[in-house]
Amino acid sequence: MTPTRLITRAIRRPGLIVPPFCRPVLLRLSGQRFSATESHRQITTTATTANSQKKEVRLTAESYPSIERDARFAKLTSEDVAHFRSICPVLSAESDDLEAFNTDWMRKYRGQTRLVLKPKSTANVSEILKYCNSRSLAVVPQGGNTGLVGGSVPIYDEIVVSMNSMSNIRSFDPVSGILICDAGVVLETADNYLAGQGHIFPLDLGAKGSCHVAGNVATNAGGLRLLRYGSLHGTVLGVEAVLPDGTIMNDLSTLRKNNTGYDLKQLFIGSEGTLGIITAVSIICPPRPNVQNVAFFGVNTFEKVLEAFIRAKRELGEILSAFELMDGTSQRCVAQVTGKTRPLAGEETKFYVLVETSGSNKEHDDDKIDKFLMALIEDETIVNGVLAQDETQQRNLWSWREGIPEVLGHWGGVYKYDVSIPLKELYSLVEDVKARLIEHGLLGEDKTVVDVVGFGHMGDGNLHLNIPVRSYDSRVEQILEPFVYEWIQKRKGSISAEHGLGVAKREYVQYSRGETELGIMRSLKNHFDPVWPAPVPIRASCC
Amino acid sequence: MTPTRLITRAIRRPGLIVPPFCRPVLLRLSGQRFSATESHRQITTTATTANSQKKEVRLTAESYPSIERDARFAKLTSEDVAHFRSICPVLSAESDDLEAFNTDWMRKYRGQTRLVLKPKSTANVSEILKYCNSRSLAVVPQGGNTGLVGGSVPIYDEIVVSMNSMSNIRSFDPVSGILICDAGVVLETADNYLAGQGHIFPLDLGAKGSCHVAGNVATNAGGLRLLRYGSLHGTVLGVEAVLPDGTIMNDLSTLRKNNTGYDLKQLFIGSEGTLGIITAVSIICPPRPNVQNVAFFGVNTFEKVLEAFIRAKRELGEILSAFELMDGTSQRCVAQVTGKTRPLAGEETKFYVLVETSGSNKEHDDDKIDKFLMALIEDETIVNGVLAQDETQQRNLWSWREGIPEVLGHWGGVYKYDVSIPLKELYSLVEDVKARLIEHGLLGEDKTVVDVVGFGHMGDGNLHLNIPVRSYDSRVEQILEPFVYEWIQKRKGSISAEHGLGVAKREYVQYSRGETELGIMRSLKNHFDPVWPAPVPIRASCC
Repeated sequence: MTPTRLITRAIRRPGLIVPPFCRPVLLRLSGQRFSATESHRQITTTATTANSQKKEVRLTAESYPSIERDARFAKLTSEDVAHFRSICPVLSAESDDLEAFNTDWMRKYRGQTRLVLKPKSTANVSEILKYCNSRSLAVVPQGGNTGLVGGSVPIYDEIVVSMNSMSNIRSFDPVSGILICDAGVVLETADNYLAGQGHIFPLDLGAKGSCHVAGNVATNAGGLRLLRYGSLHGTVLGVEAVLPDGTIMNDLSTLRKNNTGYDLKQLFIGSEGTLGIITAVSIICPPRPNVQNVAFFGVNTFEKVLEAFIRAKRELGEILSAFELMDGTSQRCVAQVTGKTRPLAGEETKFYVLVETSGSNKEHDDDKIDKFLMALIEDETIVNGVLAQDETQQRNLWSWREGIPEVLGHWGGVYKYDVSIPLKELYSLVEDVKARLIEHGLLGEDKTVVDVVGFGHMGDGNLHLNIPVRSYDSRVEQILEPFVYEWIQKRKGSISAEHGLGVAKREYVQYSRGETELGIMRSLKNHFDPVWPAPVPIRASCC
Repeated sequence: MTPTRLITRAIRRPGLIVPPFCRPVLLRLSGQRFSATESHRQITTTATTANSQKKEVRLTAESYPSIERDARFAKLTSEDVAHFRSICPVLSAESDDLEAFNTDWMRKYRGQTRLVLKPKSTANVSEILKYCNSRSLAVVPQGGNTGLVGGSVPIYDEIVVSMNSMSNIRSFDPVSGILICDAGVVLETADNYLAGQGHIFPLDLGAKGSCHVAGNVATNAGGLRLLRYGSLHGTVLGVEAVLPDGTIMNDLSTLRKNNTGYDLKQLFIGSEGTLGIITAVSIICPPRPNVQNVAFFGVNTFEKVLEAFIRAKRELGEILSAFELMDGTSQRCVAQVTGKTRPLAGEETKFYVLVETSGSNKEHDDDKIDKFLMALIEDETIVNGVLAQDETQQRNLWSWREGIPEVLGHWGGVYKYDVSIPLKELYSLVEDVKARLIEHGLLGEDKTVVDVVGFGHMGDGNLHLNIPVRSYDSRVEQILEPFVYEWIQKRKGSISAEHGLGVAKREYVQYSRGETELGIMRSLKNHFDPVWPAPVPIRASCC
């Protein structure tokens, strides 16, 4: 079978026999909740296994001894708890299990809160923060607790303000497509609601079944639809937030254009809860696409991947909704761990690309992607490829992209970096890190490092560098850091593309931001929260 | 000829005779530079006539006696001028004509500067602001001076920092589509450069031949492509700016994703030069569409306009690039003043809509718009319509939308409001204002007010309310204000959709923003510019 025929066979035609490698294959999972360290489609599986539940999570305070509890913060008293009880439902360590609020879902970070507050209204949040401010009680806002950098759980005894109980959709206007909802609405709930209205939430990510809309906004989540619908800075029209002193900032506009002074809501998008607690969001939601296509193809050089990307943007144009890169190593790992039949027969290629289109007209979209793929294969930009014939096949192709983070945990541990790099050099980081580990004798069949894997949202210049290891070895860490950060700094990349800083990356922010910018950030934090200015560049707790 | 046939005839078919009403008709202009009070395509005409040049423009200080010169600002000395001459090219009142820098293009605002600085680099701008800050000299940044609210010219003797001499395109990456350019690059120059690269600037507006890219960013310009490419908050990736004390903030990222702290550049987008001077911009530019279509149709009720809008979003989907509303009055005025043959024969309708699509595939796009129009006419959502057959016809159809602001000046003066209103009530403002003027006996053939006209970027919820008058009458102003602002406030609209505040609207900002939000804005201004805190909500000058 020649590569050309592979694509030809896959292109939809009446009566065409679906190639066997496009049949649905269920992803074998290890039993843990599947949610990668990068944003992706959700694959729901069984709950956390008993085994992983039993494992004691190390206290963040122990893992990060450099972060000391600020002595200026007061300790919680029973009078405080009684006061909070008069405001809203409360969970306290005396009578409730607070484990789920103290620990992140990856079980990497564990705080020591003794109190969880569940406000039911913006007024509740305001009362809480006003009281905390006056009493010098530290607070950490918590959404769906799906973050990847430890920003949503306490470090010490900060009070958790959980937004779980603020989960109403406030309004939706079918003419403009503008949704207003409470902070704690789960992303999938919002999207399901919008589906019923023929609209789509302009953000999609792996944790959609758990994450909160306001958490997405507070962390400026990127995810899968950014290439098509742009960032939250463009789609969020308004934010209602409570400032550290309890002031309610009502910037919950439903207007696409409003040039009346500074765009205050923008400061809250991506501020990770350090300037206030977002209590509601207004966002513009496009019409839901009627048709999707997913293609998967192999490419031999990174230059040709870039060429395919330029042509996808030009030829698929307005319907291109994902352009995902996976290197050959990542696909070998998925095949090895899951035992699935690979989507493409024939010789392995160095890179694989998943392209998704979403549009309004099936006939037009099918025609565009068919012609695009045929042209790429004819002029040998790509080696081979398949085009999914139905939703099941689409999901299967996606699983070869989405399954990567999960399977890389197979050997023991994984060093993970979520970075942005100018496109031309996107993959060079993987090659340079691999060369460095080989040079130091750390990578190989009987060595600590299994391999170096690169994949990501290529359309957004967002690479996920993952290094699966068989065991912990401090030499690996020394080889990787600060090398990776310095490498990114030299290319003016970002050390955190979409995951944020949280606890995990706050010490490394200077690799992506200059001292002037960090000075302005510190000063803005001090401005919004003058009682508790940030001792470090960015802090995960609000006040 | 039945309405249905009108559409049918207009739909492209090989050998079809172009309907006569689609032939190009040159817009008759009054001789002034054509640039409306709302963003639109540029129509280049002859320069300002001798007559209008002779007219003395009233000093802003006299028109706005409530704005006093802050006595804390120093007066310019010859030593200051000598110092500035050592930094960059200088124009001074002693030897140069500063009229063009003191007066806005509408000849509504006139300042009294005695010095214009033309920095050639970011370092120059930094030196200038540092010196001004230390000497307490007031400054106003100036881009292309195409603003509509008097924000780009001095009020008193503020030094003008003109960005004309910083006009280099710094870089363009054809893979990512990211452009970095100096502040003073003219929008059209940037777009022409991008056209050569197969890309498009994600913003288009009437003043594109004069306005500067950084001026667009500083004023968060909306314009014609917002419906398709979103706002500058989503497309601008980075900003380099000089703060009032001369500090250079380098946030000139070329990354689509960068979650490392607060998104500082967002504060500068739409801040109208009050927080610092933008010296360079990085922006993501999509591939240039290969094909455009323009349709123009008549609708009898506003409810049906809304229905057509919902269906345009759904059926034209990803290729919809403009949905412009014009009321019947506006079209009668254009016909009357220009003498052109109207695009649609038959009875007048209450509303007219111009729909534009921009896409990557001619065959698909033609098919989409043909089917969309046929369906609308068949189920009587619209009464009649035409579809342009070539670029000349497209320009002619656009002229019926773009020509409105110009022709409304025909009778003498025009009261103009650029507002955002939730879509459902978008047109009610026009009806309510008209009823009010009639009720007070001010509207009619022999009355002061000619009529009340509504048109605008319906896709963005942006209405332009224009009231042409035969002469100035203070009673009209009293009827209009604060009525219009209060009406908008009740609907949570915006008193300035895309023009900004400048001098013209700074006193009215409280109709669109609450005291809490204004307090935060004042405080942010004070924070960035502590020596010269804003005495009013927002000031047009930087420091």
